[in-house]
Amino acid sequence: MDDAARLLAVEDIKQLKARYFRCMDTKDWDGFADQFTTDAVMDVSGEMGDEAGGEASELGITRGNQAIADFVRNAIGDVVTVHHGHMPEIDVTSPTAATGVWSMEDMLRWPDGAPLGEMHGYGHYHEEYEKQDGRWRISKLRLTRLRVDFA
Amino acid sequence: MDDAARLLAVEDIKQLKARYFRCMDTKDWDGFADQFTTDAVMDVSGEMGDEAGGEASELGITRGNQAIADFVRNAIGDVVTVHHGHMPEIDVTSPTAATGVWSMEDMLRWPDGAPLGEMHGYGHYHEEYEKQDGRWRISKLRLTRLRVDFA
Amino acid sequence: MDDAARLLAVEDIKQLKARYFRCMDTKDWDGFADQFTTDAVMDVSGEMGDEAGGEASELGITRGNQAIADFVRNAIGDVVTVHHGHMPEIDVTSPTAATGVWSMEDMLRWPDGAPLGEMHGYGHYHEEYEKQDGRWRISKLRLTRLRVDFA
Repeated sequence: MDDAARLLAVEDIKQLKARYFRCMDTKDWDGFADQFTTDAVMDVSGEMGDEAGGEASELGITRGNQAIADFVRNAIGDVVTVHHGHMPEIDVTSPTAATGVWSMEDMLRWPDGAPLGEMHGYGHYHEEYEKQDGRWRISKLRLTRLRVDFA
Repeated sequence: MDDAARLLAVEDIKQLKARYFRCMDTKDWDGFADQFTTDAVMDVSGEMGDEAGGEASELGITRGNQAIADFVRNAIGDVVTVHHGHMPEIDVTSPTAATGVWSMEDMLRWPDGAPLGEMHGYGHYHEEYEKQDGRWRISKLRLTRLRVDFA
Repeated sequence: MDDAARLLAVEDIKQLKARYFRCMDTKDWDGFADQFTTDAVMDVSGEMGDEAGGEASELGITRGNQAIADFVRNAIGDVVTVHHGHMPEIDVTSPTAATGVWSMEDMLRWPDGAPLGEMHGYGHYHEEYEKQDGRWRISKLRLTRLRVDFA
C-alpha cells in the first residue's frame, strides 16, 4: 500500500470506532451491530469479576455482531452512558486487515432503583479490523482496565 | 478530490476544531472568533432549558462569528473551563465543504460567589465547515447532550 | 514535502504520543524512554509549586530520555495513572522536525498510606519532535495547566 492508501485506511478505522461509540451512547443498536463483522468476537471477560458485579454472558466472550449488539444492549440499554476513545495506535497490516489499541474512558449511570448507581472506568481496547465489501469493521475487541470506580 | 486531498481536509478540520477548544479554554477571544465564518450559526438552544439556568441569547442561537465569540465570552469569560473533543466523523462533501460530528466533554468551574458552582457535561457537536481563502472554518455548530451534572 | 508525506508525519507523531501515554500508564519504562530523543528536555516546572506538593527534580526540568523516564517512574511508578491526550495541533516544519500542542487530562491515585490521595488535572502539552533514523521522537515537552484538583 502506498502512504495515501494506508492513511485512508487509518482514518476510515478511526471513523468506524467513532460510529461504535456514538451508536452505543445514543442507543442505535442496529447501527452498533453494523460496526462489527458477522463473526466478530468481543472479549470483556475482564469486566466479569466480583468487582464488576454485572450480568455476564459466559465468561464475557460474545461471538457474532448481532449477539454482541444484544449483549451490550442488555447490559446498558437503559443506562446513561458516555464512552470516549483516545490516542489510537492503528497498524494497517494489509489492504484488508489492521490492528489497533485505543485508550478509553466510560461513565455509566444506572436508572433509579437499579442495583448499581454509577461507574467510571478507564482502560484500553485491543482490536482487530477487517475490510469487507469496501468497508472496515471490527472483527475482534478485547477490553483491559487501568482503573474502575463505582459510586 | 483524491485521497490525499480529502485526508488533508480532514486533518485541517481537526486542527481547526483544536484551535476552537484551545482558544476557548485559554480565553483567546480574537482567535476564537477567527475559527468561524462571518455568517456562522451556533445553536446551543438545548442548553437553554430550566436545568441549564444560564443567561441566554434568544433561543440559544447566535449568528455571526463576532457575535458567537461575544456570546461565549459573556457566558464563560471568567469561568475556568476545560473542553475536550473526541472521535470525529468528518465527511468532506466537496473541496470547500464538510460536515462533522464530535463527541465532547466540558467542565466548568464558576468563580466564588457566582450563582453556579460547577458543571460537567457530555454530548456531541454536529457541525458544518466551509473553506474560504484557503482556510477551513466552522459555519454551523449545534450541541446535543448525553448527560449534564451540576455541583 | 508533499501532502501525503506531511500527513504521514502527522499520523506517526500521533502514534508516538499514544505510545508515550500507554507506556506511562502501563508502567513500561523502557518503552517510555524510547519515545524521547537522547537529548530531550521535559519541562514540568509548572507542577513544582506549593500546590503540587510533589517531589521535584531541580526546577522540574529534566534532560535526556533516560533521566526523563527515571524522573517519571520515580514520581508515578506506584501510582495508578490515567493520561489522555486530545485535539493535537501538529505542524510539520521540515521532513525531520515538527511541533505540537495537545490538550491533556490526567488522573492520579496514590497508594494507601501515601501523603497524597488523588489528583485530577487538565492542561496542554507544548512539544517538539525530531525524526532520527526513520522514527519520530519527542525532543521537548512542556506542560501548562488549566485546572488541577486534589482529593
